[in-house]
Amino acid sequence: MAQAIQLARKGWFTTRTNPRVGCVLVKDGQIIGQGWHEKPGYAHAEINALNVAGDNARGATAYVTLEPCAHHGKTGPCAEALVEAGVVKVVAAMLDPNPLVSGKGMQILQNAGIKVEHGLMSSEAQQLNPGFIKRMTTGLPRVVAKIGMSLDGRTAMANGESQWITGADARRDVQRLRAESGAVITGSGTVVIDNPSMNVREPAYITNPHFTQPIRVIIDSQNIVEPDAKIFSNEGHCWLVSGHLSVKDYPDNVEQKKVELMPSKDKMSHHKINLKALLMMLAEAGIDDVLIEAGSGLVGSFIEQELVDELVVYIAPKLMGSAARPMALLPLETMQQNLELKLGDIRQIGNDLRLNYYFKKA
Amino acid sequence: MAQAIQLARKGWFTTRTNPRVGCVLVKDGQIIGQGWHEKPGYAHAEINALNVAGDNARGATAYVTLEPCAHHGKTGPCAEALVEAGVVKVVAAMLDPNPLVSGKGMQILQNAGIKVEHGLMSSEAQQLNPGFIKRMTTGLPRVVAKIGMSLDGRTAMANGESQWITGADARRDVQRLRAESGAVITGSGTVVIDNPSMNVREPAYITNPHFTQPIRVIIDSQNIVEPDAKIFSNEGHCWLVSGHLSVKDYPDNVEQKKVELMPSKDKMSHHKINLKALLMMLAEAGIDDVLIEAGSGLVGSFIEQELVDELVVYIAPKLMGSAARPMALLPLETMQQNLELKLGDIRQIGNDLRLNYYFKKA
Repeated sequence: MAQAIQLARKGWFTTRTNPRVGCVLVKDGQIIGQGWHEKPGYAHAEINALNVAGDNARGATAYVTLEPCAHHGKTGPCAEALVEAGVVKVVAAMLDPNPLVSGKGMQILQNAGIKVEHGLMSSEAQQLNPGFIKRMTTGLPRVVAKIGMSLDGRTAMANGESQWITGADARRDVQRLRAESGAVITGSGTVVIDNPSMNVREPAYITNPHFTQPIRVIIDSQNIVEPDAKIFSNEGHCWLVSGHLSVKDYPDNVEQKKVELMPSKDKMSHHKINLKALLMMLAEAGIDDVLIEAGSGLVGSFIEQELVDELVVYIAPKLMGSAARPMALLPLETMQQNLELKLGDIRQIGNDLRLNYYFKKA
Repeated sequence: MAQAIQLARKGWFTTRTNPRVGCVLVKDGQIIGQGWHEKPGYAHAEINALNVAGDNARGATAYVTLEPCAHHGKTGPCAEALVEAGVVKVVAAMLDPNPLVSGKGMQILQNAGIKVEHGLMSSEAQQLNPGFIKRMTTGLPRVVAKIGMSLDGRTAMANGESQWITGADARRDVQRLRAESGAVITGSGTVVIDNPSMNVREPAYITNPHFTQPIRVIIDSQNIVEPDAKIFSNEGHCWLVSGHLSVKDYPDNVEQKKVELMPSKDKMSHHKINLKALLMMLAEAGIDDVLIEAGSGLVGSFIEQELVDELVVYIAPKLMGSAARPMALLPLETMQQNLELKLGDIRQIGNDLRLNYYFKKA
């Protein structure tokens, strides 16, 4: 199973909107076939492994990181393929997280007289697909907010200046975060002020023929983003999100998305996009993992509405001062209201520090 | 020499206002005597080592972490004692950092026909006494600012609430910072609002008979601290620092110190204590290491005036929000003005993270 998990990882940057899955076929103590899923529309891991094993699969045991599928999608159901190939036992690390189909693949196998087991290395298997699992169980994608800040928790000077807080190594690491996400969300303020590309440029990712750019999602509730913004000029799809469709003539890769507005608590401020509705739209489009790269206002709104799963914080070794902009605009009054986090990974990246924190769900 | 440095460390919490020093005497490849300095007024490391070796010291080589002293202080000059004992070679890790006496001890030894060397493991030896070295070379103590904050860089809620941001383990670690400091500086605001003790309470330190409490220094430019404040109620000396002596009747362990005021740039705010003058007074009193435990205003002033050498930052896994008080009140306008730091040690302490940062001197 450890080998199957290693195989699944080979699809880390390319399987979306499908899960990462690996499969190893074993007979008489020998590996006789193995495979992983590469990309939607391509064969599933089990089929790739069966193709390697050929007739030899008869009598083999299949180790697979996720329950074999039972449905006819772009490819036939893997459970039936395993039956036809004559495997005698299937060990799945975890059942399908989708409550509508969970257990159905195992049922097909069992009905055909195949021995089935599940749960072996299930925690490792879950870590292959945290976004997919969250989407299947909640209807929302996994949301990671990336923050580049100074030690004193500032993400831009009061005048908006923010290039560059972190070093080149940290910015390269952000390329990885983008590459493993199905969508990158930013705000119109960032687009207008910084005019970023927000695409994946690292050769390690884009030279993979199976790689596709994440959807760039721009929240533009006031329709201020112009068609010549750099973010539209690169390969890949963009969503321009507002409560009102704009009449501006955007490039072909830009899709305008109308999302409902939320009544504003503060009468002075304009109405805001319903962020949860937006995330549900992304989940419906098959997006498992969303990365937020935005200013403190938008990041604060996502956090305040409890929509963020993880913070990836790059801390630069500098002080930007107390007049600079906060990590997240988040008005809290008492310590009782403080938001609790759990520290995950700690890593030094160049001169910066990368910290992963998870939100504790109430 | 490595052994001598280990010995010197045994005096880590007790030698102030003297440096930490260790000495090992070697003859015919055998250690025949070793010692370290424990406390002012007690024998120096060399004398302790010579006492162990006795007559056997004749013909030995002395390894000592700091140049033997040449002056008659509370104890006789160690250089002469080494001559009298008949050692034939002295290896010092570093020369005395005090420019007025540096090299004089070695000169006495050399004049007596003893072979001398210095520089072996000098970097490790310097780390034994960073505060002593700074005081001897600049007339100012080494200043460490301790910060307990949330991930978003906040040290108190807007209403002043700040207990407790960090966990019990981090607070215990702060006891160590206090125990290795000659003085702990705080502000009248902290004393009035939090009413802290600011003393060392950990048994590991206070049960050592040579341990003395650091001086608690309260900056009270507006004379608002009352005589019944808890900070005065514990064992140990306190300095109450202001531009004007108060007529209040403070306990006997409280010494009022008048320090010059600085003209305030901002006409709205009251005059402020000249912090550099205060640090010079502490250095004159023999204080090598100063710990600042104060609110964002005072911490910001020390940083702004470039008086801080090191930040020890405890980051609690929580968000306190953007209305909360900053890590340090520090008005900067452009990224050009950002203060550059260098990351030192990273350690997880309970659920918190401890980061050591050093200021890059311009």
